[in-house]
Amino acid sequence: MGDDPMVRPRYTGLASFMRAPYRENWDEVDIGLIGVPYDGGVTNRPGARHGPREIRNQSSLIRRINQATKICPYDLCEVADLGDAWVEKPFELESALAEISAFYSRVHAMGITPLSAGGDHSVTLPILRAIAAQPDQPLGLIHFDAHCDTGDDYLGSKFHHGAPFRRAVEEGLLDPKRCIQIGIRGSLNDLDIWSFSHDSGMRVIYIEEFYELGVQGVIDEAHRVVGAGPAYVSFDVDGLDPVYAPGTGTPEVGGFSTLEAQMMLRGLTGLNLVGGDVVEVSPPFDPSGNTALVGATMMFEILCLLAETRAI
Amino acid sequence: MGDDPMVRPRYTGLASFMRAPYRENWDEVDIGLIGVPYDGGVTNRPGARHGPREIRNQSSLIRRINQATKICPYDLCEVADLGDAWVEKPFELESALAEISAFYSRVHAMGITPLSAGGDHSVTLPILRAIAAQPDQPLGLIHFDAHCDTGDDYLGSKFHHGAPFRRAVEEGLLDPKRCIQIGIRGSLNDLDIWSFSHDSGMRVIYIEEFYELGVQGVIDEAHRVVGAGPAYVSFDVDGLDPVYAPGTGTPEVGGFSTLEAQMMLRGLTGLNLVGGDVVEVSPPFDPSGNTALVGATMMFEILCLLAETRAI
Amino acid sequence: MGDDPMVRPRYTGLASFMRAPYRENWDEVDIGLIGVPYDGGVTNRPGARHGPREIRNQSSLIRRINQATKICPYDLCEVADLGDAWVEKPFELESALAEISAFYSRVHAMGITPLSAGGDHSVTLPILRAIAAQPDQPLGLIHFDAHCDTGDDYLGSKFHHGAPFRRAVEEGLLDPKRCIQIGIRGSLNDLDIWSFSHDSGMRVIYIEEFYELGVQGVIDEAHRVVGAGPAYVSFDVDGLDPVYAPGTGTPEVGGFSTLEAQMMLRGLTGLNLVGGDVVEVSPPFDPSGNTALVGATMMFEILCLLAETRAI
Amino acid sequence: MGDDPMVRPRYTGLASFMRAPYRENWDEVDIGLIGVPYDGGVTNRPGARHGPREIRNQSSLIRRINQATKICPYDLCEVADLGDAWVEKPFELESALAEISAFYSRVHAMGITPLSAGGDHSVTLPILRAIAAQPDQPLGLIHFDAHCDTGDDYLGSKFHHGAPFRRAVEEGLLDPKRCIQIGIRGSLNDLDIWSFSHDSGMRVIYIEEFYELGVQGVIDEAHRVVGAGPAYVSFDVDGLDPVYAPGTGTPEVGGFSTLEAQMMLRGLTGLNLVGGDVVEVSPPFDPSGNTALVGATMMFEILCLLAETRAI
Amino acid sequence: MGDDPMVRPRYTGLASFMRAPYRENWDEVDIGLIGVPYDGGVTNRPGARHGPREIRNQSSLIRRINQATKICPYDLCEVADLGDAWVEKPFELESALAEISAFYSRVHAMGITPLSAGGDHSVTLPILRAIAAQPDQPLGLIHFDAHCDTGDDYLGSKFHHGAPFRRAVEEGLLDPKRCIQIGIRGSLNDLDIWSFSHDSGMRVIYIEEFYELGVQGVIDEAHRVVGAGPAYVSFDVDGLDPVYAPGTGTPEVGGFSTLEAQMMLRGLTGLNLVGGDVVEVSPPFDPSGNTALVGATMMFEILCLLAETRAI
Amino acid sequence: MGDDPMVRPRYTGLASFMRAPYRENWDEVDIGLIGVPYDGGVTNRPGARHGPREIRNQSSLIRRINQATKICPYDLCEVADLGDAWVEKPFELESALAEISAFYSRVHAMGITPLSAGGDHSVTLPILRAIAAQPDQPLGLIHFDAHCDTGDDYLGSKFHHGAPFRRAVEEGLLDPKRCIQIGIRGSLNDLDIWSFSHDSGMRVIYIEEFYELGVQGVIDEAHRVVGAGPAYVSFDVDGLDPVYAPGTGTPEVGGFSTLEAQMMLRGLTGLNLVGGDVVEVSPPFDPSGNTALVGATMMFEILCLLAETRAI
Repeated sequence: MGDDPMVRPRYTGLASFMRAPYRENWDEVDIGLIGVPYDGGVTNRPGARHGPREIRNQSSLIRRINQATKICPYDLCEVADLGDAWVEKPFELESALAEISAFYSRVHAMGITPLSAGGDHSVTLPILRAIAAQPDQPLGLIHFDAHCDTGDDYLGSKFHHGAPFRRAVEEGLLDPKRCIQIGIRGSLNDLDIWSFSHDSGMRVIYIEEFYELGVQGVIDEAHRVVGAGPAYVSFDVDGLDPVYAPGTGTPEVGGFSTLEAQMMLRGLTGLNLVGGDVVEVSPPFDPSGNTALVGATMMFEILCLLAETRAI
Repeated sequence: MGDDPMVRPRYTGLASFMRAPYRENWDEVDIGLIGVPYDGGVTNRPGARHGPREIRNQSSLIRRINQATKICPYDLCEVADLGDAWVEKPFELESALAEISAFYSRVHAMGITPLSAGGDHSVTLPILRAIAAQPDQPLGLIHFDAHCDTGDDYLGSKFHHGAPFRRAVEEGLLDPKRCIQIGIRGSLNDLDIWSFSHDSGMRVIYIEEFYELGVQGVIDEAHRVVGAGPAYVSFDVDGLDPVYAPGTGTPEVGGFSTLEAQMMLRGLTGLNLVGGDVVEVSPPFDPSGNTALVGATMMFEILCLLAETRAI
Repeated sequence: MGDDPMVRPRYTGLASFMRAPYRENWDEVDIGLIGVPYDGGVTNRPGARHGPREIRNQSSLIRRINQATKICPYDLCEVADLGDAWVEKPFELESALAEISAFYSRVHAMGITPLSAGGDHSVTLPILRAIAAQPDQPLGLIHFDAHCDTGDDYLGSKFHHGAPFRRAVEEGLLDPKRCIQIGIRGSLNDLDIWSFSHDSGMRVIYIEEFYELGVQGVIDEAHRVVGAGPAYVSFDVDGLDPVYAPGTGTPEVGGFSTLEAQMMLRGLTGLNLVGGDVVEVSPPFDPSGNTALVGATMMFEILCLLAETRAI
Repeated sequence: MGDDPMVRPRYTGLASFMRAPYRENWDEVDIGLIGVPYDGGVTNRPGARHGPREIRNQSSLIRRINQATKICPYDLCEVADLGDAWVEKPFELESALAEISAFYSRVHAMGITPLSAGGDHSVTLPILRAIAAQPDQPLGLIHFDAHCDTGDDYLGSKFHHGAPFRRAVEEGLLDPKRCIQIGIRGSLNDLDIWSFSHDSGMRVIYIEEFYELGVQGVIDEAHRVVGAGPAYVSFDVDGLDPVYAPGTGTPEVGGFSTLEAQMMLRGLTGLNLVGGDVVEVSPPFDPSGNTALVGATMMFEILCLLAETRAI
Repeated sequence: MGDDPMVRPRYTGLASFMRAPYRENWDEVDIGLIGVPYDGGVTNRPGARHGPREIRNQSSLIRRINQATKICPYDLCEVADLGDAWVEKPFELESALAEISAFYSRVHAMGITPLSAGGDHSVTLPILRAIAAQPDQPLGLIHFDAHCDTGDDYLGSKFHHGAPFRRAVEEGLLDPKRCIQIGIRGSLNDLDIWSFSHDSGMRVIYIEEFYELGVQGVIDEAHRVVGAGPAYVSFDVDGLDPVYAPGTGTPEVGGFSTLEAQMMLRGLTGLNLVGGDVVEVSPPFDPSGNTALVGATMMFEILCLLAETRAI
Repeated sequence: MGDDPMVRPRYTGLASFMRAPYRENWDEVDIGLIGVPYDGGVTNRPGARHGPREIRNQSSLIRRINQATKICPYDLCEVADLGDAWVEKPFELESALAEISAFYSRVHAMGITPLSAGGDHSVTLPILRAIAAQPDQPLGLIHFDAHCDTGDDYLGSKFHHGAPFRRAVEEGLLDPKRCIQIGIRGSLNDLDIWSFSHDSGMRVIYIEEFYELGVQGVIDEAHRVVGAGPAYVSFDVDGLDPVYAPGTGTPEVGGFSTLEAQMMLRGLTGLNLVGGDVVEVSPPFDPSGNTALVGATMMFEILCLLAETRAI
């Protein structure tokens, strides 16, 4: 048994993502699991910088095979923990995002599909900059969140964690017509705060519509919107109700459940996914550790999807 | 930006309810947000006296506009934090309730609609005494709770937190035929403990019936029962499942969710509401702080309803 | 009031299960409430040895009568807390299970129906050995769990907490055709890990099928599978979503809710139940204490079922 | 081993104080361990009503013999858990104290030395009323606390937890000249708040003087002040620094340590002690449970002292 | 009683620092209590932005008069809560510090002595810039900390929380010969990391020397070093042992106690203090809330010192 | 900066002990940092199996150089994280200890000095079996603990965590005349429980004697007892007062402080140390995480001592 870290007792050994091997040499890696311990883009409670550590720790509970879909990502492709896209100069937001982007450009240049653990949601922009930089080929997006994150300037910057998808559209990285945002809710300071989503043609599913459509209805809509082109999946744990993910920076009461999230993610099978992330896990606000376990579980669901795409 | 406290970073400044201005001068106030830091009526775990502080703290996360209903209460009327109806002599239950009543009589005399944060549920009785004291015009009630709170003597008093609505009917403050109680459940020591609710004609929706009727069915029933007359909404957080509100004095496993609560509250639009409260948030039993955030969120939903009524 | 411990303030007195009397003399007892403070069979996080203490503590919140079913178990039969089936030699798994079995053989010889609070799930095997040891009369099983617990050797033993039901079938204690397992989910290291359940003819309801069938559909299936013969109910709190039961050794994200569990348990009325247990409550991982309250609540639901069976 | 509850694994069995037998029949009992689950006298954070339960729970960690003094109280006299002096009518302070006093009068009439676990400090007054009611024979007092608790009216009562020792002197229960108060500190609203202590002749050792005198100096002073007459020892856990006892209602930064407390208590050997208590353990404010363990440890030190006195 | 917020029950009302009045009009204010909810300078765990809120909350436990020194700061001068020096553009460190400095320049221009609650230690630099900007009159410093905070570039900036005092000397704000640093300890990455302290002539008292000198020895040394000129006191809670202040960003095991800190602070009486701060309280890492209470207590000790200076 | 993991932000990267490189190839390693995630020997609260993970995590806070002693272990010798001595068959105590011993025999055969993180204290015995197996050359011992751990049979085994040092003497691994045990305290079930320590000639320093001797006195005594021969240092975190190490299995109120522990450990310089361990860190009982940080800090102190010995 000692040869396979996957079947060792869960509480043993150094914690890598999903117990996948930590690799400094990235040759032959198909899917790279990457931490982005950066929360310099939050507008409220910090702490997501500690997310990768705790997600790695809790992810030891995740085993090899997805019981619901029967997918074993490790049989389909080479998966490795690539370590952290940490930031050398964290005290200035825009340069920090540039550092992150440079890391992902190296990943992308190696032909590796990235699956990331944030960090706050501002880190998705530099990831997209690295992997969606082809002209005329913007990505689609399946985005789980309580917030559209298509806001504008706030607190003196337009690169905070409430705005990455607006920037990504403006920079030509995302095709808004192929973007769907699921679980949106929460009080607003400005009725038009998410008008960019609506005006640009994104499909916004507020939590009330989610409640009406049901899981399968949302899945159908996601396939319809995203279509066959390349797409990215971004899972902000604050899309879940705060009882499932209390450890997050901007909790909004009244979200979907983890089971609903898992079923929605599994429903994305068949999409052409080129990367994904789970963001906004903030361990200091998570006394039971469950948020990090939830984050790891969602990462595993996305890993299975990415492995399917790579294996085609 | 500095001029509007609503848009400052959430973690800054002194914590008032919803960041509304604290007002010692109550002129021109339409809706008063009031804390009642009193838990002398509990029969089990204390701590709700700390509720107003923590709800104020967490309520900074609530913004101006209800995304689901588009209501901005602050545009419809003048909202202020009136401080706490604290008790000078807390060591004797009945006199403490009299002090609370006196505070609310001052509020009522100013023509202010009160929205309160308890405190335990015993505080609803003195509030009703102050605002429903008109002869021949008892109020209707929409009451979310795990318990009917229409019990009788227990531990030597009939004014504890399990009995306010019986007292309120007996004192002519509530019209039982126009009262609906939603979410009732939990084991009993006496099969007849809630017989007053049934015998007096209140509409009691046990959690099992809630599960069958669904949110819209309950909303319809609430409108049918309460009708067009003046009514009060009282939200005990133990109506929610304890995972959403662990910080409470008498948790009962198996309740409704926060999203269901929000949708039910929004469904009360159009009722003639003259006041409301959120009670039984007990921070010492709430390690993650989520219960207070839930309490603040429910207060905001009720605030939007009260603002609509005031604005007509 | 002082004469009836059931109606004393909940926080007073020594904590026995459900405030039932602690009895060293077991004569006349119909249903025995028993703690099994043993977690030597866990493969991951320990702590369930502390379960009986905390369940006893939180169970003071449970009152006499089931509001949903109107059953008062204490009116139907004699219920007592029999103390703990503690283990004198805990450092070796198989001998520890033998000690537990010896305790339950004494219980069974007195004609007492046991309702137990674990401890980890390995303790169900010795309980079944004591109460199902009749030749040619294996028991049926209603089993709530995230895992089938029909695994084989792991970490050098086949008696760990992931295998009791395979051992019980092999030992002729359970009739697999009359076994139903509800809520199964979670990632796997081996696709065939639960093949024993399938191959032996157990009815396995994965969480996805639960979501489709709904509570009533599962209840119907349980009655169909278990039939009229004697049966045992085993409730592993990790069948619940971890938000309802974070304090457990092997949490699996995406389970059923407490309300769903309560309704399923109540739906088992009419079955011929000869015993039951609630296992895997691990207080050290339960900062809010809610898991133990949930465990106590499920014990009470099973107590009502057992009392009904005894009273026929 | 099974015959002696003292040597069973600590986490097993129902929790009684120190694992002493719970006795409904008080004949032959020398020292009675009693819980007083009442906190209706607090002026700030409640929760001490939950103290007896948690102290019982943690006290299972305490073994038979005091390693430092070699005293085994159970060899010197008969020790039993007498259950709780719970209050039937908790909603009014003065009548609640009368109920407590009635319970202790029964204890006293049986010739039992009481050792109590509060509850808030208001409960010491009714205990003293029951055991110190002889004319012309007031007790001495060794009192560990951050506060003198010789205040006057506050919040409408003179029986709150900040005043019991003033009342006890006024009622002739204590001889102030034979009282010593140790560890006093904390900010004040009134410079004269403890003037009753000074004016009546109590010996007040502020924490700064404690720091100078050292443990032995304080012990010497206690013997000098209290002398040979009968005396009572009252240990408020807020005398300790809050790091040792965070779970308390009125924490005051900058107290003595548990080791210093143990050494001071042991130094009281030879005094003529007729009772004692440990009060103000408030479990809801004690996430680690350490405060209750500290409370149990101090109870054991006092138990050893009381046993010595009884054994003479 | 209702007229004096100081004597209301502690858990009532909006939380201002020490229950001092919140003042938007700063006329007549002598000492201003100010929050600086900024943690953009941390190099490890964030969260100190939440410090002012929690310190305000816990500071309600502090009363009017210092029992040890008999000083009542409110009798000596006018004390008010001036609100927060919050940052409009938090995403860039240097500009954020400039915003903070601008706020304090307004305070200084009004002749108000500032007493601040951080925030991380980077905020002390802009405070000093505002209040020590006189040519040829640099301040002395009494600095309690585990770290000298005289480091240089780290993570791309020289304005992070480990360097403010080097910058302050370089900018002529502090006279290093009149600076004393107390409690220094912890492992190092570079033996010379604090060489600036030594080379510039600061007096550095490592924790081992503190242990030898004792409290009075350190007090004597502080007076000798600082002398009669104007000085500032900066209290980083990580100077305390982490058991007293677990809620901080860079805990270092093995510090001084709160009682020792209080006695050292009181020993600074007679110095010419022109301001002070308590920094690095990070509530997300403080499950019991004790760190914020400790922070408030140290603020009160400094408030008493500042009031004495103002009153001369 | 990116080249040296020691100076990266603390919260980044996979967590190895002290950020030392994880090495599967053990050639050239002088000191091996090893986790022993095993708690099958506890007699009370489990959880120490999770110790190595959490100590690794918190140890990222430790830097390269000991500020007090100026030692940089990484400059003196090659230090690596060797991973965990995990147990393949954990369900039987004696065989589990044999597995651990086999691991350490491999370490010892490579000439590596082991520094271990437990696990419970039962793991020290198999470590000693591996490294002290030379005939006629038993080791000396410096042992910090609340318990002598020289007990005998308990709960059916003589290899539990309260007995390793008795076994080690009996097996000729330790020379009792060269053993010193520091910090002993706590109540006893048997006055003779530690008689083996006394009878065999170990030097036992109870906490009361520690209080009298002071740190330097204990250091002197340790040098006198242990002498020049090879010795092992074993640090059980329950030797510390529980406020410094609440996360442990058998807390005993009234211990020494972390600063005292650090100074004592530093005082061991010059001894001929051949290995060491820090045991009984139990993260499930450690809500703040401070116990693991304390454990890591003590490991670093021992690492500096071992490096000195290796470098001679």
